[in-house]
Amino acid sequence: MERILVKDTTKKIGKKVLLKGWINNLRDHGKISFIDLRDRSGIIQVFATSELSNQVHTQSAVEIEGEIKNRPEKLINPNLETGKIEVEASKLTVISKSRELPIDMGKEELELELPTLLDLRPLTLKNPKQTQIFKIQAEIAKNFRDAAEALDCTEIFVPTISASATEGGAEVFNIKYYDKEAFLTQSPQLYKQIMVGVFERVYTISHAYRAEPSITTRHLSEVVQLDCEIGFIDGFEELLNALEFVGKSLVKVGVKEKPLVSTKIPRLKLREAQKIIEERTGRNLTKEMDLNPEDEIEICAWAQEVHKSDFVTITHFPTKKRAFYTMPDPEEPEYSLSYDLLFRGIEISSGSQRINDYDTLVKAIKERSLNPKDFEMYLTAFEYGMPLEGGFSFGLERLTMKLLNLQNVREASLFPRDMKRVDKLL
Amino acid sequence: MERILVKDTTKKIGKKVLLKGWINNLRDHGKISFIDLRDRSGIIQVFATSELSNQVHTQSAVEIEGEIKNRPEKLINPNLETGKIEVEASKLTVISKSRELPIDMGKEELELELPTLLDLRPLTLKNPKQTQIFKIQAEIAKNFRDAAEALDCTEIFVPTISASATEGGAEVFNIKYYDKEAFLTQSPQLYKQIMVGVFERVYTISHAYRAEPSITTRHLSEVVQLDCEIGFIDGFEELLNALEFVGKSLVKVGVKEKPLVSTKIPRLKLREAQKIIEERTGRNLTKEMDLNPEDEIEICAWAQEVHKSDFVTITHFPTKKRAFYTMPDPEEPEYSLSYDLLFRGIEISSGSQRINDYDTLVKAIKERSLNPKDFEMYLTAFEYGMPLEGGFSFGLERLTMKLLNLQNVREASLFPRDMKRVDKLL
Repeated sequence: MERILVKDTTKKIGKKVLLKGWINNLRDHGKISFIDLRDRSGIIQVFATSELSNQVHTQSAVEIEGEIKNRPEKLINPNLETGKIEVEASKLTVISKSRELPIDMGKEELELELPTLLDLRPLTLKNPKQTQIFKIQAEIAKNFRDAAEALDCTEIFVPTISASATEGGAEVFNIKYYDKEAFLTQSPQLYKQIMVGVFERVYTISHAYRAEPSITTRHLSEVVQLDCEIGFIDGFEELLNALEFVGKSLVKVGVKEKPLVSTKIPRLKLREAQKIIEERTGRNLTKEMDLNPEDEIEICAWAQEVHKSDFVTITHFPTKKRAFYTMPDPEEPEYSLSYDLLFRGIEISSGSQRINDYDTLVKAIKERSLNPKDFEMYLTAFEYGMPLEGGFSFGLERLTMKLLNLQNVREASLFPRDMKRVDKLL
Repeated sequence: MERILVKDTTKKIGKKVLLKGWINNLRDHGKISFIDLRDRSGIIQVFATSELSNQVHTQSAVEIEGEIKNRPEKLINPNLETGKIEVEASKLTVISKSRELPIDMGKEELELELPTLLDLRPLTLKNPKQTQIFKIQAEIAKNFRDAAEALDCTEIFVPTISASATEGGAEVFNIKYYDKEAFLTQSPQLYKQIMVGVFERVYTISHAYRAEPSITTRHLSEVVQLDCEIGFIDGFEELLNALEFVGKSLVKVGVKEKPLVSTKIPRLKLREAQKIIEERTGRNLTKEMDLNPEDEIEICAWAQEVHKSDFVTITHFPTKKRAFYTMPDPEEPEYSLSYDLLFRGIEISSGSQRINDYDTLVKAIKERSLNPKDFEMYLTAFEYGMPLEGGFSFGLERLTMKLLNLQNVREASLFPRDMKRVDKLL
């Protein structure tokens, strides 16, 4: 008999079927048992005699043969897609036996402390609520690619090993590279800009590494970045439009609390945002160069209340606070053509129009006390006709966290890396 | 006026248009010039007076306004999609000027030595033949995702920093990880296997790192891998079917020499392949544990001649020559349920059915003189019901190389990393 998936059982009432999956839960009622069988497509209840069910443990991988039957009216489970039916098992074969579980996997919510959740990752991820986080994450990635393709971007694959600690300062990881030294890239930034000179519009999903010597709920040492870079733009507006188009596309996923997406996302210069925050809270921010986490929450609250939008775009951060390649606003050069996209109280994307003139770029590099020699390959791209361009980058884990109201970005990474943990505690 | 793309010019004959792009080539005929304008969608000929064209250099980024006209019959270029038309320029604005070129970018083939090609990567990639390599590469990646989704795999994102030099021996890169030591993963192997216990079927596009202290035409220090892993399989055959399905899907791209894809890819055990090679060449291979590059070419020649197939699948490599997690064939345990997929004379994919029983796996780890302690997180997955499973992995650069008949895998990597080069020579 050929295996069918749980999601297809509803079409097989009265039929004998073969299912494969894991024992998600087992309720022993003496002579009979109810098994929740989980496969990649869903969960179904299996009714089995104790003779069959005695041999199995929760989380074991099994094959079950049986007949699909309608459940009695009063036993229908409206929360389950297969809630109107069940399988009456005639045969149960263990493919791979599970050990006794160190934690209770039978509850809908695991309710574990974060270290336990991560220590037992291969087990805890089997909890359907945990699994769902990463199904959503896969959806976000797919939405990103679809949106980038809709913008006519070409996918590129760029390296993560670099010869110099690019983008200046900050915390980079060193690699012993044969008998030399190399570094893990902090972002695909320089490479995606180079590729604008080739493809005009590019996107890439890549890993970025930050050796931040601090532990917060929103930072990881290794993250997945979703990057776009767009050339031959007409101006700054076009970049904001592209940013917001991609941002809106990313959050079209199957979550309970649907994001508020107004057709027109409110756009504020940093100074305007600070004024609004001051009006709402009395906090004077005129000396601040950026929004701190508290400010981000406040301005997002404003956007929700006033514009019915879970998004708000903040532009014109001080030039000296952004990366060297950021284009200053020609009309007020101490502010830059930069932007952050905030979503539900947190920055999920950042970007800018870039300096595209070679000489200006070299000057900007020197002004940051960086060495143009370290940017040789990158600068080459600006010698041979770099159009007006800009781009942005989304953090996959952080966006997943916010969409699902998770408390810690580590819950949105399959195998999170931080200062203290690489799978196990260091 | 709104910019249109070159590919849309054929619908605009007689109309005035605005184009943006790069001067791909400039032929000066005294009072008039012919410009080949390149944008992300194609190339079109622009007819300009010397007054307009005198200010521009090849590779400069420009805006051109002009009228689309039919070319005289005898000037039609059948090799160009826009070969029947041209733009009569009325205005030409330089967006970003190119410096004088250090190489001749006007030829269809660059004909550069590899080091020059790579030293000037941001420039040489603008050559349409070079650009095309990476358009095909993006297509391969897309085909991979589509094929994996068709197999009902979920996309996962796994880390590249690991706590131990997994998979045993071999050359790994060390990272200074805060005040500890960590390593770059040699493949996403262990993580994708863990994730079979969660999603049953997964795929991932990830970076893999090999500190191979040798320089060959087919090895890189950092590569992009396309990985699938599939659980609850019925048996070995199902894995071969999945491998070949994905393999065939990957090569459906816009290349000139279309791959020979027979409906049934020939499958040979290593020993059978060696016998065929002996019959064809007289070389006795009975003591060899693997196919060397010469053998791979020979058995692919056989597959092309006898089966009209550019693919051939080789199975049953000696157990001790494959990674510890490889399942031995129960009928002859010195050979394993492993496979390589060869394409046009080179291995492009490798994989196996895996040991899914915890105790057997721990034994296999110890037999390789590896320490189960280093595999703690991985082994946890096998404690809680790992079904029969297996998978495979394609090398993106190597497949791109073979599909386009490139001589060196470095030509199939945007920014190749090897022992001697990280963008510039080390």
